[in-house]
Amino acid sequence: MSRQITSFSNDTVKLLRSLRDKKARRGSGLFLAEGLRILAEARDSGRLPEIIAYSAGNKVHPLAARIIAECEAAGGDVIQTSPDILSRMSGKDNPQAILGAYRQPDVALGALDRSAAPLWLVAQALRDPGNIGTILRTGDATGAGGLILIDDCADPFSVEAVRASMGAIFTQSIAVTRWEEFVTWLRAGPGQLVGTSLNTAHDYLEPTYQQPCFVLVGNESHGLPADYAAECDLLVKMPMAGRADSLNAAIATAVMTFAIRASWRNGQSAKGFVAE
Amino acid sequence: MSRQITSFSNDTVKLLRSLRDKKARRGSGLFLAEGLRILAEARDSGRLPEIIAYSAGNKVHPLAARIIAECEAAGGDVIQTSPDILSRMSGKDNPQAILGAYRQPDVALGALDRSAAPLWLVAQALRDPGNIGTILRTGDATGAGGLILIDDCADPFSVEAVRASMGAIFTQSIAVTRWEEFVTWLRAGPGQLVGTSLNTAHDYLEPTYQQPCFVLVGNESHGLPADYAAECDLLVKMPMAGRADSLNAAIATAVMTFAIRASWRNGQSAKGFVAE
Repeated sequence: MSRQITSFSNDTVKLLRSLRDKKARRGSGLFLAEGLRILAEARDSGRLPEIIAYSAGNKVHPLAARIIAECEAAGGDVIQTSPDILSRMSGKDNPQAILGAYRQPDVALGALDRSAAPLWLVAQALRDPGNIGTILRTGDATGAGGLILIDDCADPFSVEAVRASMGAIFTQSIAVTRWEEFVTWLRAGPGQLVGTSLNTAHDYLEPTYQQPCFVLVGNESHGLPADYAAECDLLVKMPMAGRADSLNAAIATAVMTFAIRASWRNGQSAKGFVAE
Repeated sequence: MSRQITSFSNDTVKLLRSLRDKKARRGSGLFLAEGLRILAEARDSGRLPEIIAYSAGNKVHPLAARIIAECEAAGGDVIQTSPDILSRMSGKDNPQAILGAYRQPDVALGALDRSAAPLWLVAQALRDPGNIGTILRTGDATGAGGLILIDDCADPFSVEAVRASMGAIFTQSIAVTRWEEFVTWLRAGPGQLVGTSLNTAHDYLEPTYQQPCFVLVGNESHGLPADYAAECDLLVKMPMAGRADSLNAAIATAVMTFAIRASWRNGQSAKGFVAE
């Protein structure tokens, strides 16, 4: 049922505010998504929030009204509140007019179906939640099945990651695991593990990538640990032209992912036509 | 000369702190860069800070000591201070042990030499300073000459942009201008203006891109205005596989840039070998 709430000390307001904190997200099993566009994306993916907070200051958008009605019909909690309170929840000065708290999906590696997609992204110890969200968004755009987070990555359900994912948090499968478990799972089925490295002769445009392809990206500062790189079936190099010897992690993932797709679209390696 | 400063109210401390604010950056003509890695990148590019602040808490790294000595020899101001004060300057809880204030370079469009590089990046109304910095970093890695900022972009000299650039703020030329001035300048010399669009039949892997190539990327939410797209010599489409119909702006720029470079490396279009 929809309630009007204007107090910062209301329990639901406090719960929603707390979801900016990882411990509170883990405790409640919920996460925040902001803005009608992402809530609509969630709905299109068959997901409804358990709690909605929206500002009654403006006219309610018809699509927002529909999501609110569906949330209530499903037994969800809907609160009408002020932009001030929404601002406190989202941590932004100019908050979106609506936000939802969603149940976190199962992130067990065993729940992934590798045959569901030709491409999977794997991130190791990525610290920046914006990078995690951007990689989810890129995965969605390139037909990846999902993102496997290895070792101590930033929380994919943080407000920053969800925001950067632009809705892909609802369309991409997510698994959180450790390296040993991942390798055991990977080797129990088909899959090519591809990493990037500065210490390889293989240009990233040369290979014919196999399906399912698992693209492994390492920590922002340190890259892949040597033993992780050694486990890869294929290490490729993206040639750099400038002073820099590295790319942003989300950028490197996207360039690799598009190159892999290009090789598949062409039915052969993207560089296969070059006489050498 | 090196001075020890422990007061938050010291004038130099206040100046450095103020550089997180755009108005103060414009007034002083300075900007902040944090961390030895970026200061060393600047030095390699022939740039020294006018002011250095560093923490005396730890042993000073030999390279930092050299940059400090060179800064002093050039008449710069060097202050030894506390991690607390560095933290206030950088806005980070765990500040780098050294930071420098650098003079902003000339950002007049006329100062750019288009013949200096085969590739230039052009951003229109990009609002996210992290995107600006990431695009600079990608430009450096892909041999771009620099970044042209059109209409009301975020400040490339903001702390966030400089941080995301990972030193590329010192290696890439930067121009800030308006659309009309840019088009006049562009058309006064050689150059292919390439934009991305959802409404074109040209796949981004098809063309043979011309040099110098100017890659135009639009605002994060709205993309390119229709008349800007109409001015492009070439509009290309990056095929999307998922629910999403767009990529993060810095991601789209990087994927385009790597595809353009790949077409040049191959001496023909990247998809030229496909029988159609």
